[in-house]
Amino acid sequence: MTNRLSSEERAALLETLPGWLPVTGRDAIHKTFVFDDFNAAFGFMTRIALKAEQMNHHPEWFNVWNRVEITLSTHDANGLTRLDVDLAAAIETFTRQ
Amino acid sequence: MTNRLSSEERAALLETLPGWLPVTGRDAIHKTFVFDDFNAAFGFMTRIALKAEQMNHHPEWFNVWNRVEITLSTHDANGLTRLDVDLAAAIETFTRQ
Repeated sequence: MTNRLSSEERAALLETLPGWLPVTGRDAIHKTFVFDDFNAAFGFMTRIALKAEQMNHHPEWFNVWNRVEITLSTHDANGLTRLDVDLAAAIETFTRQ
Repeated sequence: MTNRLSSEERAALLETLPGWLPVTGRDAIHKTFVFDDFNAAFGFMTRIALKAEQMNHHPEWFNVWNRVEITLSTHDANGLTRLDVDLAAAIETFTRQ
């Protein structure tokens, strides 16, 4: 099983992920993305879905119109792991495509 | 602009949509769908996305793994309209495909 990040690992890795913030009351990270319209938002979600399925590590997410709110945590580890950081990093690349 | 449903229209139309329930504190309807896995859940979401874009009427929705929670309301009308009922009916057909 993937291990939860230590406080030091968490701090160091989150520095590389601007805008991803800790979730209050959970060992998880969260970011909201806003696009021009639903087409762009769902296109972004589809890229993430393909990556998530490949990683076998999936987001918790909410969408309304042009807004996508993503929470990442590793359910099997009951907290934040390297998988979440890797998925967040991939998600960041999808905002630039 | 599409008009909000009357109480009578709402009651009559919701009878045709089993499992769709009113949202507390909002003029909206809600249903949760559960699938075998993320692939099935996101496939379902993708069918809905294509339909929603075609209708220019979009859901509010949350997904984690195999669960999709959908809320429908018409923002322009600040409540439930025929568009929501039509989208809910389309969504129901996508669960059977």
